[in-house]
Amino acid sequence: MTDFDYERIADARKALAGRVIRTPVMPLCSSKIAPYIPDNAELFIKLELFQHTGSFKARGSCLGIDWLDDAQRQRGVAGFSGGNFALALAWAAQSAGVPAKVVMSKTADPYRIQGCRDLGAEVVLVDGIAAALPMLDRIEAEEGRRILHPFNDMNMAYGAATCGAEMVEDMPPLDMVVLPVGGGGLIAGMAAAIRKMSPDTLIIGVEPEGANSLSRSFASGRPETLDSINTIADSLGAPMALAESMTLARENVDELITIPDSLMADTMLLMRHTLNIVAEPACTASLGSVLGPLRERAAGKRVGVLACGSNIGPERFEAYTSGARMPMPPV
Amino acid sequence: MTDFDYERIADARKALAGRVIRTPVMPLCSSKIAPYIPDNAELFIKLELFQHTGSFKARGSCLGIDWLDDAQRQRGVAGFSGGNFALALAWAAQSAGVPAKVVMSKTADPYRIQGCRDLGAEVVLVDGIAAALPMLDRIEAEEGRRILHPFNDMNMAYGAATCGAEMVEDMPPLDMVVLPVGGGGLIAGMAAAIRKMSPDTLIIGVEPEGANSLSRSFASGRPETLDSINTIADSLGAPMALAESMTLARENVDELITIPDSLMADTMLLMRHTLNIVAEPACTASLGSVLGPLRERAAGKRVGVLACGSNIGPERFEAYTSGARMPMPPV
Repeated sequence: MTDFDYERIADARKALAGRVIRTPVMPLCSSKIAPYIPDNAELFIKLELFQHTGSFKARGSCLGIDWLDDAQRQRGVAGFSGGNFALALAWAAQSAGVPAKVVMSKTADPYRIQGCRDLGAEVVLVDGIAAALPMLDRIEAEEGRRILHPFNDMNMAYGAATCGAEMVEDMPPLDMVVLPVGGGGLIAGMAAAIRKMSPDTLIIGVEPEGANSLSRSFASGRPETLDSINTIADSLGAPMALAESMTLARENVDELITIPDSLMADTMLLMRHTLNIVAEPACTASLGSVLGPLRERAAGKRVGVLACGSNIGPERFEAYTSGARMPMPPV
Repeated sequence: MTDFDYERIADARKALAGRVIRTPVMPLCSSKIAPYIPDNAELFIKLELFQHTGSFKARGSCLGIDWLDDAQRQRGVAGFSGGNFALALAWAAQSAGVPAKVVMSKTADPYRIQGCRDLGAEVVLVDGIAAALPMLDRIEAEEGRRILHPFNDMNMAYGAATCGAEMVEDMPPLDMVVLPVGGGGLIAGMAAAIRKMSPDTLIIGVEPEGANSLSRSFASGRPETLDSINTIADSLGAPMALAESMTLARENVDELITIPDSLMADTMLLMRHTLNIVAEPACTASLGSVLGPLRERAAGKRVGVLACGSNIGPERFEAYTSGARMPMPPV
């Protein structure tokens, strides 16, 4: 794999123009959410959950399919994912007439599994990621399919960069951007574009406490693997950081923080009640951090947040929010 | 009351600039909703549910408060509403330091009643609209409050016109616009702006079958009152049309249709699953009509729809959608 080239962000944008949705940006100032916003802060949210297949993963997946050669196109692609990358890969492949096989954990939200089937992908269910990697190896060996990675491939970094570029263009100049971190591919790509276009913006990443592989990797200086994942934010539950995305993220991310699942559950409820948006846990991490642990630092600042994606069935939404509470506005 | 003056739309826009939210417009083309869109149609939705207090009513309410004289400001305002106008009036009054009293039906969504209290309004609960009008008369006589009307006052028409103007500016040239109809104030104001700015756009209004006062009034040529209201779309459940808004609506609305509650319930489910938006029934009327009864006419056209507002508690959302079905895409 080649290194990330900042000059190629523009090529990625051109390649995706008209094929992905330029998702809306909105000020978070309505009377319903205003009581929860840090003092004198101006918040802006990019509603990337309205992207094709409901998440930013559509961008990089589209590029991944674009970059296949003819033989790969014929043999098809495969990938492992808890859901949002699987959906995006299925969609991008279907759009290009490329056969897709997605390996998903049996514990994935049934809503996402059905979504992949609806998009014409063949779904292979396995017992978690330990079983997924051998399965992918077998698929690659036996079927000659090209395996696309959910976050560490350069197509995913350039895809995320296009999202970052839109964020800078469609929001006023920002003091701070807060972005969710799963494997690190989203923040690596977005931070690259944001740093390039808006060098003075502070870039903060957010991981669930129970899936803090990038924080650990930044601390040790090398990609770390977690023994276990423990978070409701399945879309942020990558069990390891990997070299390429980690290296790119380190170039531009100023700081990483971790948040508890309870903050995401509470923010799911808050987004339901104040924005009428059904957000999966990962989709709340960025906003929840600004309303919670980053509240004082965000006061008086212009802050950009990302609703990175949301695919969640009613049962899980109900289960995660049943014990949640609306964070009290600091009156 | 003076007649509606098309030249004053610009004044209303200037007065509201920076005080109401220029709500986002989005193409409805994501892979999640694409299977449901009429053949070769391009749909655009204005997400007015992200407005202050969650509906377009914030616009006109703000103007209504602006237009008070000093004595009226001191004595305060009052109004009757099933919820969205009550919330908007409470908010606009609170923002200007004007005391507000809102008369609401006991059957209003508790979520909206609490919302009005949170916005500092005094809430008076009555047994439906029959009891509301005498109550408002008493409040006016005893407290000297200015009574603001939920849809028939010119401030509401100009407020709605600002929403229509944004729709035209933020969408590409449209063949057709489909708008919800309650009392007729929203469509009267929006259609005025749309006709002025985009004369060739066909403007269609949508009423629930069980609250078709404007359709009946258009048919008879004078404002009609219904014996009863029977719809889950409480925000569209006005029991009568009134002269001023009806006259203005007739100038610009090309056609009215009626839709059953089941279409709105199904579209609530569709918007939850394909847009991750929690829409109250009224908020689905415009989109639901294009996906349903207007499907063939919308095929191949550029169509604008409005998510006019949404304030609905989890219990009612669940109750209305429990028997709903996702409309099958016509594959």
